[in-house]
Amino acid sequence: MAKEITERVQDYAQWYQNLVIRAGLADYSAVRGCMVIKPYGFAIWERMRDALDAKFKATGHQNAYFPLFIPKSFFSKEAAHVDGFAKECAVVTHYRLRNGADGQIEVDPQAKLEEELIVRPTSETIIWNSYRDWIQSYRDLPLLINQWANVVRWEMRTRLFLRTTEFLWQEGHTAHATSEEAIHETKQMLDVYADFAEHWMAMPVIKGVKTEQERFAGAVDTYCIEALMQDGKALQAGTSHFLGQNFAKAFDVQFANAQGGREYVWATSWGVSTRLMGALIMAHSDDQGLVLPPMLAPVQVVVVPIYKGADTISVLRDACQTLVHECQAVGLRVELDAEDNARPGWKFAHHELRGVPVRIAVGIRDLENGTVELARRDLQTKTTVSRDGIALVCQQLMNEIQESLFNKALDFRQSMTFEVDTWEDFQLRIEAGGLVAAHWDGTGATETAIKEATKATIRCIPLDQKPEAGSCIYSGKPSQGRVLFARAY
Amino acid sequence: MAKEITERVQDYAQWYQNLVIRAGLADYSAVRGCMVIKPYGFAIWERMRDALDAKFKATGHQNAYFPLFIPKSFFSKEAAHVDGFAKECAVVTHYRLRNGADGQIEVDPQAKLEEELIVRPTSETIIWNSYRDWIQSYRDLPLLINQWANVVRWEMRTRLFLRTTEFLWQEGHTAHATSEEAIHETKQMLDVYADFAEHWMAMPVIKGVKTEQERFAGAVDTYCIEALMQDGKALQAGTSHFLGQNFAKAFDVQFANAQGGREYVWATSWGVSTRLMGALIMAHSDDQGLVLPPMLAPVQVVVVPIYKGADTISVLRDACQTLVHECQAVGLRVELDAEDNARPGWKFAHHELRGVPVRIAVGIRDLENGTVELARRDLQTKTTVSRDGIALVCQQLMNEIQESLFNKALDFRQSMTFEVDTWEDFQLRIEAGGLVAAHWDGTGATETAIKEATKATIRCIPLDQKPEAGSCIYSGKPSQGRVLFARAY
Repeated sequence: MAKEITERVQDYAQWYQNLVIRAGLADYSAVRGCMVIKPYGFAIWERMRDALDAKFKATGHQNAYFPLFIPKSFFSKEAAHVDGFAKECAVVTHYRLRNGADGQIEVDPQAKLEEELIVRPTSETIIWNSYRDWIQSYRDLPLLINQWANVVRWEMRTRLFLRTTEFLWQEGHTAHATSEEAIHETKQMLDVYADFAEHWMAMPVIKGVKTEQERFAGAVDTYCIEALMQDGKALQAGTSHFLGQNFAKAFDVQFANAQGGREYVWATSWGVSTRLMGALIMAHSDDQGLVLPPMLAPVQVVVVPIYKGADTISVLRDACQTLVHECQAVGLRVELDAEDNARPGWKFAHHELRGVPVRIAVGIRDLENGTVELARRDLQTKTTVSRDGIALVCQQLMNEIQESLFNKALDFRQSMTFEVDTWEDFQLRIEAGGLVAAHWDGTGATETAIKEATKATIRCIPLDQKPEAGSCIYSGKPSQGRVLFARAY
Repeated sequence: MAKEITERVQDYAQWYQNLVIRAGLADYSAVRGCMVIKPYGFAIWERMRDALDAKFKATGHQNAYFPLFIPKSFFSKEAAHVDGFAKECAVVTHYRLRNGADGQIEVDPQAKLEEELIVRPTSETIIWNSYRDWIQSYRDLPLLINQWANVVRWEMRTRLFLRTTEFLWQEGHTAHATSEEAIHETKQMLDVYADFAEHWMAMPVIKGVKTEQERFAGAVDTYCIEALMQDGKALQAGTSHFLGQNFAKAFDVQFANAQGGREYVWATSWGVSTRLMGALIMAHSDDQGLVLPPMLAPVQVVVVPIYKGADTISVLRDACQTLVHECQAVGLRVELDAEDNARPGWKFAHHELRGVPVRIAVGIRDLENGTVELARRDLQTKTTVSRDGIALVCQQLMNEIQESLFNKALDFRQSMTFEVDTWEDFQLRIEAGGLVAAHWDGTGATETAIKEATKATIRCIPLDQKPEAGSCIYSGKPSQGRVLFARAY
């Protein structure tokens, strides 16, 4: 039997951790808060990365790579940024070790850096320091660059994928001649993220703007996509920041405009991280394990021969191998599980745990009847179908499953989104979980008070917010529209 | 005019640096010894990475990701490894900054780590610490894993791509049940590297084994591929290590064999890095700039309309656009340079600097005659050819150029490889540059003495070494075959 995992209703957090570890996605490492992304988890991340990378390139961006280390003084240059990012960081102070008296190695006190280096928590400062040399005139703009990198934020409470000290991400950093262009870029990349979340991850998201308190340190505006997890908590799945001229001013990046004048450059930055793996897992999976949307599944179809005695092994293996070739021929990612020393029940549970969207089982009776048993991971249904044309049936199923997962998640989110107008209802609703659309007076004081009272934050002011006069749920002061509250990851 | 670069004969090192910076491949950063890989350089690296990654997967490897940080104590566990790697490292000692009295930020002395963390210079230790949990029985073997990552080695003298404090690389780490299997893997990956160097980079390499002194710290045997640069210096382009049971013993990684006994696991590791970019540049480029093999060129063909007056712009641009579409249709990576405010001479120099393999120029006369001007970057030849079928001509040219670059580099290497039998000739030859095949008595003492006298190292004992009795070039003691000496990067 495959290892069982805790049920969601019993302990959602435990279910998540069990699932991540037992499905072979990631594990804790010897370094506090840092994870190891295991091969199966990494194969999913690679598919996410490649899909996003193609979208970035299709919108005119190029990849580059900037240093891991940032001189400490760079953080002080942008006033808001320093408060947001220069606190919980890994600090490099020395560059050499030596053999100590006790046979162990120790830090060489002679090798102290004059200025400490910070392991990048995000790269605006080091990148804008380079952009000063790269940008001279309006002809150098727009500069549309992305990097895939590891970053480090010293987190006290960590959870695999969702919050780790080191994580992998991409960070786009663009430079523009006008404010309008930069805002357009900010929104375009938010759309890219939303499109990826919905079409690849099958995860519906709400596009919105963050409040001042939740804004990226150094941004003028932070746009985000927010998703709802199965336990009723929200998860910020990606952000896109309009940085105004803040970093250009901090790093003195000016350009000569077409009229010969000099202006500060306008900036954006945007990123998604391995946190998306956590979102993907929590959006669709169940008590049997992972449920993967076919577009991101490393293995879309697994073919399992059901042996009945040693003399059936070779004929069934050959028949399954033929099926595998047929599936490959139509472009499916397919795997043959022909092991003859594991029981079918064990194999089924194993592939369910790994979230393989479709399983085909073939026994001796199937060979005689020209049938196969087809099992859908998402619905946990099994049907016996004709063996003829099975590859095309599977191909079609991939689209169906992809769509079905999205619709199920969307239905769930709709059933868990509530308009609430009284403080009492608000508190009850937040406690029960889900997204709460409520009026807010627009002040940071109220936002803080609500957070302290309920642990709910304003996830975003939705971009499609309808103008609607109302009174703030907490202060009773006037409001022009509803914002979305939730407890969040 | 595009910026000129120093000629190779004048100052090879300066030529290299000029080229890397002016062709937009990389640049120095604000952090000592760390480089910024610029978009054009990164586009070449991405092609190298993708080609290698496909080869790794085709040989059964999976990607994973291990932490950036390694606890200091891990390095002490493998005796040889600690001497080789735990010296010039970036050491993280603190995890928090705070606001200082002077408005600047400073390291928070309260946030000192109990055990310092080393930014990985290579990952054997942290990976084998995980493998202990992953490997229980022979059924878990072989474990064939690779990671793409950044690593840091605190270098005192750095050169863009060739030797930088932080660099990008891949490191394969495999675990096997038997010594034979691990040795087979080590050699297989050396072949993968050699095949990549020769077929993708058009760079001939010699496969060999390192001497004990040049061996990877912790390896039983280090295999390498060595290439010869245009200045007569050798460059180690990739290494593959047979690690025996050294790391398995250091991290106590044992497996239950099929007979129920327990054995230590056998290991390999192998890697190539952004150093390959330096090798690629120095293998083929000339005084006009970069020369790229078509298989790695981000842009294989550039199409340049030669405007003659404002009224020719639209007709020429349209004609060139059609050419671009034709080239794309046969799978070429093609770019249109339709700018109308730069002179053709400037554009030509720019694309030569960037190493675009083929340039097509189209003027009004060409339109009338049904011709185009075709220029080959590698030979710097220009010919006027029929416009019909030009895409297929270019496609064919890509193969020709790829082969021609390889043959040119191979001819050069052969002309610069010398068998030498006296100490006097040896010294003269090493001084003049090139690979010197000479007899060596097999001792580390002689190897060191030769290095001190001539700055030449034994690059490798070639795998295809012919048995040949002779006397050591330095000590006169007997030798059974020639080894390869050179000064090296």
